[in-house]
Amino acid sequence: MTDEQVRAIYELVKWAPTAMNQQPLRVVLVRSAEARERLLAHLSPGNRTKTRSAPLTAIAVDTEFHEHLPELFPHYPGARDVFADDSARERSARFNGALQVGYLLLGIRAAGLAAGPMGGFDAAGVDREFFPDGRHRALLVVNIGAPAADAWFDRLPRLHHEQVLTTV
Amino acid sequence: MTDEQVRAIYELVKWAPTAMNQQPLRVVLVRSAEARERLLAHLSPGNRTKTRSAPLTAIAVDTEFHEHLPELFPHYPGARDVFADDSARERSARFNGALQVGYLLLGIRAAGLAAGPMGGFDAAGVDREFFPDGRHRALLVVNIGAPAADAWFDRLPRLHHEQVLTTV
Repeated sequence: MTDEQVRAIYELVKWAPTAMNQQPLRVVLVRSAEARERLLAHLSPGNRTKTRSAPLTAIAVDTEFHEHLPELFPHYPGARDVFADDSARERSARFNGALQVGYLLLGIRAAGLAAGPMGGFDAAGVDREFFPDGRHRALLVVNIGAPAADAWFDRLPRLHHEQVLTTV
Repeated sequence: MTDEQVRAIYELVKWAPTAMNQQPLRVVLVRSAEARERLLAHLSPGNRTKTRSAPLTAIAVDTEFHEHLPELFPHYPGARDVFADDSARERSARFNGALQVGYLLLGIRAAGLAAGPMGGFDAAGVDREFFPDGRHRALLVVNIGAPAADAWFDRLPRLHHEQVLTTV
């Protein structure tokens, strides 16, 4: 998994929308053996073996996006102040960061690779370990690459459209 | 915007992943004039005119997904109990619901339609108005359809990959 492959995925998924164009998602590529060990310590035991052998592991995080709003949403000069409040900003960053994680997972798969998202980790531990300045919060850990042929589980059932779609 | 078009979008986006296959997203299609008026009252003023004239408006919500886990994640009989706690369930539903909203927005666009997502609404008001049983929480309101030729703003800037991707 080269940096060029990862950049190509970003160049695709960056276009999908976020509220007020806030783009809170940041992606930390865990490449060094030392950083990988530090991450493994905060994963649920069941996620460690596959993460140890993954071609690349990424930590998807959100950040204090409001600093960038004057550039990203220039027609509304008050945008930055809307999110000066920590609680409003963190809530928006988490939701819009999750939207962008969804785009990222589809972008990885659109590139012909597998994305193995893992919610089973100690988010507070990852944040302390990798982001001691308190400005980022881990959303999801994702293994990326071409998995072994025996890596797949059977597909699990999806809800029927009548369970999901209603009309008023 | 027919029900068949909406179902085709769902049949595509339903495959994208959620944690423990929880699939918390539900989509409420606002079709009646009466329901549209009730929704408009809870939107930010700037979102009302375009929503009044949209071919279709949907409210994306999350729900108490844990009831479905015995069917959706059958190899882990304890899955439902993991999310019996309201706080853990709501946090997971909001994050995974947002992932699915991201998939939905891309699915609408993949169908050749425009998706106009709007975060500017009173979520608590929408919940009280449409979901008095307390089991759903509005995540996003989305206009769907073929917009008028003059409906578009210029595209806003996206962050450079060096601002988003880091390596450790």
